Amino acid sequence: MSIRYPNGKAYSPMHKEGTQLKTVNKVSYGNRGMSLEEDINSSNEYYLAKGIAVIHKKPTPLQIVKVDYPKRSAAVIKEAYFQQASTTDYNGVFEGKYIDFEAKETKNKTSFPLKNFHKHQIEHMRQVINQHGICFSLLRFSAIDEVYLLDAKHLCSFWSDQENSRKSIPKKEIEVLGHVIPLGLYPRIDYLSIVKGIYFS
Amino acid sequence: MSIRYPNGKAYSPMHKEGTQLKTVNKVSYGNRGMSLEEDINSSNEYYLAKGIAVIHKKPTPLQIVKVDYPKRSAAVIKEAYFQQASTTDYNGVFEGKYIDFEAKETKNKTSFPLKNFHKHQIEHMRQVINQHGICFSLLRFSAIDEVYLLDAKHLCSFWSDQENSRKSIPKKEIEVLGHVIPLGLYPRIDYLSIVKGIYFS
Repeated sequence: MSIRYPNGKAYSPMHKEGTQLKTVNKVSYGNRGMSLEEDINSSNEYYLAKGIAVIHKKPTPLQIVKVDYPKRSAAVIKEAYFQQASTTDYNGVFEGKYIDFEAKETKNKTSFPLKNFHKHQIEHMRQVINQHGICFSLLRFSAIDEVYLLDAKHLCSFWSDQENSRKSIPKKEIEVLGHVIPLGLYPRIDYLSIVKGIYFS
Repeated sequence: MSIRYPNGKAYSPMHKEGTQLKTVNKVSYGNRGMSLEEDINSSNEYYLAKGIAVIHKKPTPLQIVKVDYPKRSAAVIKEAYFQQASTTDYNGVFEGKYIDFEAKETKNKTSFPLKNFHKHQIEHMRQVINQHGICFSLLRFSAIDEVYLLDAKHLCSFWSDQENSRKSIPKKEIEVLGHVIPLGLYPRIDYLSIVKGIYFS
């Protein structure tokens, strides 16, 4: 049953919930987003284990077309397709406050392409902002391994500016408007230390 | 491609995200939970459209075993299985606060069986309580069409009591400890009016 992906790694279906999402990223975007997702999931597991926060990645929605019901066995989905999510990928609670974010990465070194985000994700972020939730994106420049937190209001503003032909966010603006995240081992991407400083003061 | 379920209704794969979840409930629990889920999704759409809250049902996690990549076409999942979620089904933000809940229904008239909940859902609720999130369950007695909000701390307490051989929550206790939800058309289950009264005072 093992499937080999273009990167030569076998797909392991026996991992716990959430692992399937990597497949989705691979399918949709090649290898883009892979390691960032792993690092964030690992960080969230750390936060959960330490009682710091409860933040999970949402499962990817699938459009199910055909299901078999073998006698005395579990239902088997025989035909389904990956769907675009209508929200961001991550949400949860940190000290009573609602946390909501999307994580993306680029190989670019000087700017972050806005095509990484979808219209409905931006719309969702605007809705969360209106409800006074804490909403942001984590942006990784993978070539230099830098991760920034950029508040959703800035991202939404850059998104609107696209109509004026700017299709990416210059890294220099991210450095000014965003916040660099400390990288480590436990947790790998300590974004909540930054969230605490920005939104809880 | 249409599939007919035991209730005689055809499965329509063309609905938007979230519809697939009904399939899951049907598969796992027969028809149990169906209309409650529809009513809550409809209520959440109302809240979203009115700018009252941003609350979504999470997609059901699937364990993907086999994926085909037809040339020039979208990836097709050829073998997958329904997985148990590790969190509750619904979460989101309401006036800055984190909202998290599970919705269940019973045909019983005098008590609510605890087997409707899974251990990992209770564990998730405890984690959310520790983070000071607003966490509860919506319990419908379908035979009499009454829906109650029961705070998660009570549910977790009843859950722990199971060891003392009590396998369900008497309805009389739900009436005392919980809060009856007003039912209507827009929204069908106005649980946020109750949330506001309990948690925002």
